[in-house]
Amino acid sequence: MKILIINPNSSPEMTASIQKSALAYANGDFTVVTLPTPGAPEYIDYYTDAAIAAPGMMQLVRENEAEYDAFIVACHCDPNLDLLKQITDKPVVGIGEASMKLASMLGHSFSVVSAGTHSIPNKQAIIRKYHLEGCEASVRGPKEPCADCSAEGPYLSAARAAIHEDMAEVIVLGCAGFTGLAGSMAEELGVPVLDGVVCALLIASGLVKAGLSTSKIRRYSKGE
Amino acid sequence: MKILIINPNSSPEMTASIQKSALAYANGDFTVVTLPTPGAPEYIDYYTDAAIAAPGMMQLVRENEAEYDAFIVACHCDPNLDLLKQITDKPVVGIGEASMKLASMLGHSFSVVSAGTHSIPNKQAIIRKYHLEGCEASVRGPKEPCADCSAEGPYLSAARAAIHEDMAEVIVLGCAGFTGLAGSMAEELGVPVLDGVVCALLIASGLVKAGLSTSKIRRYSKGE
Amino acid sequence: MKILIINPNSSPEMTASIQKSALAYANGDFTVVTLPTPGAPEYIDYYTDAAIAAPGMMQLVRENEAEYDAFIVACHCDPNLDLLKQITDKPVVGIGEASMKLASMLGHSFSVVSAGTHSIPNKQAIIRKYHLEGCEASVRGPKEPCADCSAEGPYLSAARAAIHEDMAEVIVLGCAGFTGLAGSMAEELGVPVLDGVVCALLIASGLVKAGLSTSKIRRYSKGE
Amino acid sequence: MKILIINPNSSPEMTASIQKSALAYANGDFTVVTLPTPGAPEYIDYYTDAAIAAPGMMQLVRENEAEYDAFIVACHCDPNLDLLKQITDKPVVGIGEASMKLASMLGHSFSVVSAGTHSIPNKQAIIRKYHLEGCEASVRGPKEPCADCSAEGPYLSAARAAIHEDMAEVIVLGCAGFTGLAGSMAEELGVPVLDGVVCALLIASGLVKAGLSTSKIRRYSKGE
Amino acid sequence: MKILIINPNSSPEMTASIQKSALAYANGDFTVVTLPTPGAPEYIDYYTDAAIAAPGMMQLVRENEAEYDAFIVACHCDPNLDLLKQITDKPVVGIGEASMKLASMLGHSFSVVSAGTHSIPNKQAIIRKYHLEGCEASVRGPKEPCADCSAEGPYLSAARAAIHEDMAEVIVLGCAGFTGLAGSMAEELGVPVLDGVVCALLIASGLVKAGLSTSKIRRYSKGE
Amino acid sequence: MKILIINPNSSPEMTASIQKSALAYANGDFTVVTLPTPGAPEYIDYYTDAAIAAPGMMQLVRENEAEYDAFIVACHCDPNLDLLKQITDKPVVGIGEASMKLASMLGHSFSVVSAGTHSIPNKQAIIRKYHLEGCEASVRGPKEPCADCSAEGPYLSAARAAIHEDMAEVIVLGCAGFTGLAGSMAEELGVPVLDGVVCALLIASGLVKAGLSTSKIRRYSKGE
Repeated sequence: MKILIINPNSSPEMTASIQKSALAYANGDFTVVTLPTPGAPEYIDYYTDAAIAAPGMMQLVRENEAEYDAFIVACHCDPNLDLLKQITDKPVVGIGEASMKLASMLGHSFSVVSAGTHSIPNKQAIIRKYHLEGCEASVRGPKEPCADCSAEGPYLSAARAAIHEDMAEVIVLGCAGFTGLAGSMAEELGVPVLDGVVCALLIASGLVKAGLSTSKIRRYSKGE
Repeated sequence: MKILIINPNSSPEMTASIQKSALAYANGDFTVVTLPTPGAPEYIDYYTDAAIAAPGMMQLVRENEAEYDAFIVACHCDPNLDLLKQITDKPVVGIGEASMKLASMLGHSFSVVSAGTHSIPNKQAIIRKYHLEGCEASVRGPKEPCADCSAEGPYLSAARAAIHEDMAEVIVLGCAGFTGLAGSMAEELGVPVLDGVVCALLIASGLVKAGLSTSKIRRYSKGE
Repeated sequence: MKILIINPNSSPEMTASIQKSALAYANGDFTVVTLPTPGAPEYIDYYTDAAIAAPGMMQLVRENEAEYDAFIVACHCDPNLDLLKQITDKPVVGIGEASMKLASMLGHSFSVVSAGTHSIPNKQAIIRKYHLEGCEASVRGPKEPCADCSAEGPYLSAARAAIHEDMAEVIVLGCAGFTGLAGSMAEELGVPVLDGVVCALLIASGLVKAGLSTSKIRRYSKGE
Repeated sequence: MKILIINPNSSPEMTASIQKSALAYANGDFTVVTLPTPGAPEYIDYYTDAAIAAPGMMQLVRENEAEYDAFIVACHCDPNLDLLKQITDKPVVGIGEASMKLASMLGHSFSVVSAGTHSIPNKQAIIRKYHLEGCEASVRGPKEPCADCSAEGPYLSAARAAIHEDMAEVIVLGCAGFTGLAGSMAEELGVPVLDGVVCALLIASGLVKAGLSTSKIRRYSKGE
Repeated sequence: MKILIINPNSSPEMTASIQKSALAYANGDFTVVTLPTPGAPEYIDYYTDAAIAAPGMMQLVRENEAEYDAFIVACHCDPNLDLLKQITDKPVVGIGEASMKLASMLGHSFSVVSAGTHSIPNKQAIIRKYHLEGCEASVRGPKEPCADCSAEGPYLSAARAAIHEDMAEVIVLGCAGFTGLAGSMAEELGVPVLDGVVCALLIASGLVKAGLSTSKIRRYSKGE
Repeated sequence: MKILIINPNSSPEMTASIQKSALAYANGDFTVVTLPTPGAPEYIDYYTDAAIAAPGMMQLVRENEAEYDAFIVACHCDPNLDLLKQITDKPVVGIGEASMKLASMLGHSFSVVSAGTHSIPNKQAIIRKYHLEGCEASVRGPKEPCADCSAEGPYLSAARAAIHEDMAEVIVLGCAGFTGLAGSMAEELGVPVLDGVVCALLIASGLVKAGLSTSKIRRYSKGE
């Protein structure tokens, strides 16, 4: 089994850290490769970033469709996920959708910890798109966007507030750049902390194993 | 006041018929221009079509931002509407959003008549995005996609079924290509029939007159 | 085009300030007249006030139906709006419905600033009636009802809390008596502030221009 | 205990049949009186009918407030119920609200059988107002409005379709004029059939016994 | 009329205080008996407690079905309510369902005051099960679980916060152990305070009087 | 990795066919064992069946907690799932929850094909519990309960109606007894057909691999 993780941005650092988490989960059971998106911006934050990344993401799927068994979109806002689900018969899994739907199985409600506050409405629009409003405790982020995503401090504070004030029972890391933080944060917080990269690999590798993929009958039909 | 209507596809016929409806509504009170999207496919039907049209649509907004007071996206699935709302301070109105929200003010519930049945789930995803599920009676289309959008017959049948079986009180034309059919259909059906081009112009010209536009504080902030 | 604005209360001051805002929006493009409701109380606050105003509001529509092209109900709780939609074939627009549905097109979510706190549940009942719960950030009012509606201070504070604590992106003025405050508040707040009188005129004049009105098939049928 | 049933219309026949059902339920345990509404139309079908009935309904409550312990509004669309809840400290119960909320306790979902089809959207608006959409299987009525409400046939057919096609488990009689039909219909149908007059008496007499009434803190506060 | 109240736990003190409240409401009009559940734990707090209580609760219904006209489950989380509704043709009423549905008739929204905070998500799951999310202001409890349920203080504080911060208009006592506190709390708070035991008796005795019971057609059919 | 599948009923045939499907999915990558529930009825159809199975299911978890890494409840109505999630720190996955949440990732909407029609409301209650109403196209079953679950015919008919009339894009097999039918049905139908046993194993084995389990903070806390 071979899974291709598409990092929708062009940052080599983020690509490397995603790949590191992916290899740890795969643990030799299947092959996983993470690629940055050609022509994409350094960070996917706005609708423009997603639009600019679209052609490169389509290209990655099309060039690798024969060789790979499944694709993952490794940005928590799941940019262009519907688009990629449409163009290939292979399974495509977004880290946002995978992590939040798994979160709904592990506790009464979840909170998403995001990189900043300006994108909270965008996260909530995605949560609604996935019919998950009823499972959402809150979306929280540090007041100031963090220069350094790997610094746990501000995210731990946001998560603690989510758990104690918003009654969240599960924490979802709301940025692919947070990959690798789940273990230590879960230990600190005492509740499950979900890493989207891990969650998407869990779903994607399972779908391949089960021989399942996107329904092509209407919403994601390829057209002629 | 000058309003630019962006036809997200590249069809000159559809561009011309949109412009004709627009001029009829504007009635000399303001200037309206319809342009096809450079680089776009002939018809916007799939997620791929919307993605391919995105760069041309952004270009049209950016090149015309100084000269025009508002922009309209003239395809009923509102492709790239969030994207355009983000990149400009001027109002951007989608014909899907405008027609369905106006429909909710004119009767208990509305049905959308669409060009075919394969896109019904996509329409329902948009209806949900706009929080309009509670106002939706149904989405219906002719069983066979119509080669000729201007033939009223199959749409009238779909609309009649919506009114009598689904209890719709208002009909929304679910394709920019249907522009111009509203008047005769309304006469036949005895209920309001909404043309998205007209509805979007109604909202856009009103917003310009009122000095209102998209909030730029979070979801549609331009970034740096 | 002639539009009649029905002020559901009997206050001459409020009638005058509504008319002033209306003339500013109409800007000579159409005729607009604001009338107080005969037999109505001085202020519409409770269900009793709306019931007492009903006969006078019906009378205003019936006496002016031939002469006017559309009617506006100028109280933010849209008293007797369903009733007036039923009795006439001409469009009837409520400032509550118009302002909140327009707000939903201009940002991720809106907050209503109301005159006091005792009517917050009533506002929320209307928001639900219009299927807008999903677009509502909050309803907020000054702790103490303001004697003087034209004093911006307490409303600015409520609006700021709505924007920063409740994540509202658009502010809706929740009382016809606030008409005229939108411009200066928007400047202070940096987000769109919607005046219901302006919003209802935008919709009503557009409907007249488009030849659209209430569906008379079931919910708003006139009976025999 | 004394309960006043307000028949919002002026029909002596309907007043008599409501009183008959009420006496049967009361069974001597409490006093119950049914009065027609002064100045009301013969039948409450449209928003205008409810508006015309409002002053008479308020008068009945005010004139009888000292003598009676609770009030019932005996029309299934619960006309002016919010209004009456506001003006008195005594409990006010609508037959629509009481019957549909009781129905939600007796089976997975209920259907309302209404007198005709034109008012189906109005029924659905009330069902939504009471947050009962999730418990509603359908609203159904005979295609032709029945001249004679006491003829069971067409209602039995509508109820059977509701039970077998819409999966309703409980039937709610959607018109005060149907009072007295519940027993025989339940026998025919094999599911509970709820008579609104009985349901409202059940709730109202229970509230009096328990010393409970409407909260007067905000939505239904009496004002000054 | 004879009503059996099943206390799902085995505490004699709680059984006695439930019986005391029940007798006060019944006031000699009908017979009411409260029994503790054989084999049940001392307190129903977790899913395990409900599962352990199930056989004893079924036994109480089956042994007493011939003699009693209705059954009440007297724990606010309504443990095994669906189960009991299935096994008997007689009405079965839960104090949670009865109190929260009655609360929705007495004010715009209600808050549940619960015995502690750890069960707040469980309460919210029940509120959702009953389709009451739209009527819920909040669920609140004292930070520390109270050793002594009869101490009003911490519950009054929670209720006050619910009324003033969450805009609740009605308070629901979220534990059978609170029975007897409603009167004094209502006096302190100035809003209706609902005792589940009283509410369930109100509904159950009314259903018996009206000859109504659970629909046995599908969800609660007895099987063969 | 060792996963224990709990068949909540006592049927040796169903236990064997579940184990067969499980082994095919596991494919030697992990150990999987299916056990029938001691003391359980032959088939889980009613609330009583679930209650009778509860003690045996708890016993299976407790006796095997040390040896196994995760537990699966292999009945599509997920009987006692909350209960088992509470009593162990290991992951517990229901085949209903797993299959329906995976279905929501593979197409616009899903339909559940159930063994009969009497349990359709119970399925819908579970769908609502999991916040999946918005993803549900329908629940359908053959009119007559099938004696022989392995006969594909009546299920194929129900699935075809779901796909073409209800617009389902994914089919979920609504009974553990259908395990093994997914492959041939998918081939016939041309859309994904989900086998709950496979889906639950996918999720459970993934959770074990990722080191994730149920949050024990509130709703599923073990108590003292």
